[in-house]
Amino acid sequence: MPVRRSMPTLGILGGGQLGRMTALAAIRMGVNIRILSPHRSGPEAVFANVTIGDWTDPSVLRAFAKGCDVVTAESEWVPVEAFTDATDGAIPVYPRESTLKRIRHKGRQKTALLDAGLSVPEFVNAKTLNDAKNSAAHLGYPVMLKKFEGSYDGYGNHTCRTEQELAEAWNNLAAEDGVLVEAWVPFDEELAVLIARRPQGQSVAYPVVHTEQRDHRCHAVVAPADISEATMREAQRLAQKAVEIVDGIGVTAVELFKLTDGTLLINELAPRPHNTGHYTIEACHASQFENHVRAVLDWPLGNPSLRVPAACMINLLGHKADASDMSTIVQGLSEPDASIHLYDKLESKPRRKMGHITVTASNPSEARVKAENAAAQITL
Amino acid sequence: MPVRRSMPTLGILGGGQLGRMTALAAIRMGVNIRILSPHRSGPEAVFANVTIGDWTDPSVLRAFAKGCDVVTAESEWVPVEAFTDATDGAIPVYPRESTLKRIRHKGRQKTALLDAGLSVPEFVNAKTLNDAKNSAAHLGYPVMLKKFEGSYDGYGNHTCRTEQELAEAWNNLAAEDGVLVEAWVPFDEELAVLIARRPQGQSVAYPVVHTEQRDHRCHAVVAPADISEATMREAQRLAQKAVEIVDGIGVTAVELFKLTDGTLLINELAPRPHNTGHYTIEACHASQFENHVRAVLDWPLGNPSLRVPAACMINLLGHKADASDMSTIVQGLSEPDASIHLYDKLESKPRRKMGHITVTASNPSEARVKAENAAAQITL
Repeated sequence: MPVRRSMPTLGILGGGQLGRMTALAAIRMGVNIRILSPHRSGPEAVFANVTIGDWTDPSVLRAFAKGCDVVTAESEWVPVEAFTDATDGAIPVYPRESTLKRIRHKGRQKTALLDAGLSVPEFVNAKTLNDAKNSAAHLGYPVMLKKFEGSYDGYGNHTCRTEQELAEAWNNLAAEDGVLVEAWVPFDEELAVLIARRPQGQSVAYPVVHTEQRDHRCHAVVAPADISEATMREAQRLAQKAVEIVDGIGVTAVELFKLTDGTLLINELAPRPHNTGHYTIEACHASQFENHVRAVLDWPLGNPSLRVPAACMINLLGHKADASDMSTIVQGLSEPDASIHLYDKLESKPRRKMGHITVTASNPSEARVKAENAAAQITL
Repeated sequence: MPVRRSMPTLGILGGGQLGRMTALAAIRMGVNIRILSPHRSGPEAVFANVTIGDWTDPSVLRAFAKGCDVVTAESEWVPVEAFTDATDGAIPVYPRESTLKRIRHKGRQKTALLDAGLSVPEFVNAKTLNDAKNSAAHLGYPVMLKKFEGSYDGYGNHTCRTEQELAEAWNNLAAEDGVLVEAWVPFDEELAVLIARRPQGQSVAYPVVHTEQRDHRCHAVVAPADISEATMREAQRLAQKAVEIVDGIGVTAVELFKLTDGTLLINELAPRPHNTGHYTIEACHASQFENHVRAVLDWPLGNPSLRVPAACMINLLGHKADASDMSTIVQGLSEPDASIHLYDKLESKPRRKMGHITVTASNPSEARVKAENAAAQITL
């Protein structure tokens, strides 16, 4: 039987919502997909060609690799080294191992950006508690203590107002090589920019968006951000440069602080499609997921520009201990402009990302109001 | 394990591109899906929960029905009667059997519309060849001879310029109850309107689009159509009325002829998401597939309006005898505004619908030029 031999197969390491939305974009374009996930989490269950298996096991990885033309990882914590080792590097993996190494460790990430002349908040990689205390005294309290590796959604960060708080946070967050001590940034606004980049370096920058955190989690993203043309260009330039420095392939998200005087500082990078880019599914000519697939396949990139005047994305976080009651979704649909995305997670937990809503509109505030109204109807 | 018990399961009868795109819209909203297809055709293969089996076999149908809350059919030719019989009508099926019966038979469809006072081209349901000859003489040549049931994409229609041509076409197209003889319509333009309608009758109308056929197949769809506000409203009114008459639930497509004086005639109805509505995926707040799912689940409908100024969809038809070479897709992607959709059909055939391209833009002609340029790069 003639099969679509010339369409590539993309292997996706990870069965969460990012892998799911990447797969949906690939499927639309006729790209074959295979997914490997270490456990059933739900978002992957709608697809054929899903393997649930130990992704550090060479035999599992070799079986998964068969027939894959390119492999991507949905998160920086996926053990891509194990895949590369098991397959002798025969199959390209994006993001590259070297990129992940530079990004995973916040100390190394910040040092690389600073060494390249990019603006970041003042920081010290403190090896000992004494180092940390001296650094904090030098930077001035409050300071942020950040775990070097493994933090997400605010877990792994702590704001310290006193030396005593710092000592306690040290006990929780310090690894063998210490902890990151960062000056408190009195930012006016948080911004984000996505870059999609091909293996030879061609890249495109998405619009600069305004992001809002609540309780250390992304609550809302508004596109475009209400900033000057000059600030917008500078944010995109910084992001593009940062992604070059870490050699990010596929989509890389760059989060920035904007100070009241307009100064921009890079907060952090994520080497993958990102929560701050979900709005692109409805709002841009090519979504972040589509351009991630195109970039890792080394295909020409799609237009990252907005195809609508404005958009707002609101995360739908879990409130309950299970996911058996989704009935309020129907209330959310009473806002007729809302696009509701649910990730099919098997279990809901308080603060877990269960889905999101995007509204496009003729201006950012209209989008925001409609998205917030729809989200307010829903309790997951 | 807590499973998403309160999210409904939608059964989809049909494994072609319409079932596939309906499934993709359902998945995005967290709706569970199951697909039943009588054979492997390709578009269905990306999903879990696919049954390949005889969809006239009661035991296959009963097994498929288990766990479905609502069932939909991707085409008017799906034997939904068999499903209803096998399951004793315990599960709602949309479109309804009664709707399919009225739409499948072109003679009955046209009679129902005419009886309700809607404008259609002049026609006669001719029972015998002699009837047909007399009708053609009365209507004046050329006339269209149309098979009552089972035609698609121009197969089953024949333009007859002479009585001899009519006699030949009769032999090919007439069923036991005869054939439809229709006056030739000197139309200026073809238009289409989609209606999404819930079981209790609440409905929304999509924008009126311009459609272009080449060789009896839809080539291009441009949204919005370049028509007066009055013509637009009249087209939507006619479409809404036509769908009420056949009691269409879910999405129903209404194709119309526009005469040079602005008069509108209903050409035909299709009780399902339709090729003329693929543009809605990118261009409207809620796509035809999303609103089809919402309508058959009896959920509030999404906004059918354009979220962009304009869009153009071009079909990608097969040219070759197999689907092994898809490499020109990459050339098509060199138009950065093009959204390419491929359906993963296992085999390509000349004129088979293999995929489509949509471009959104600030005006219809820009969208058209970019979509045609992208499509021209691709040979499937």
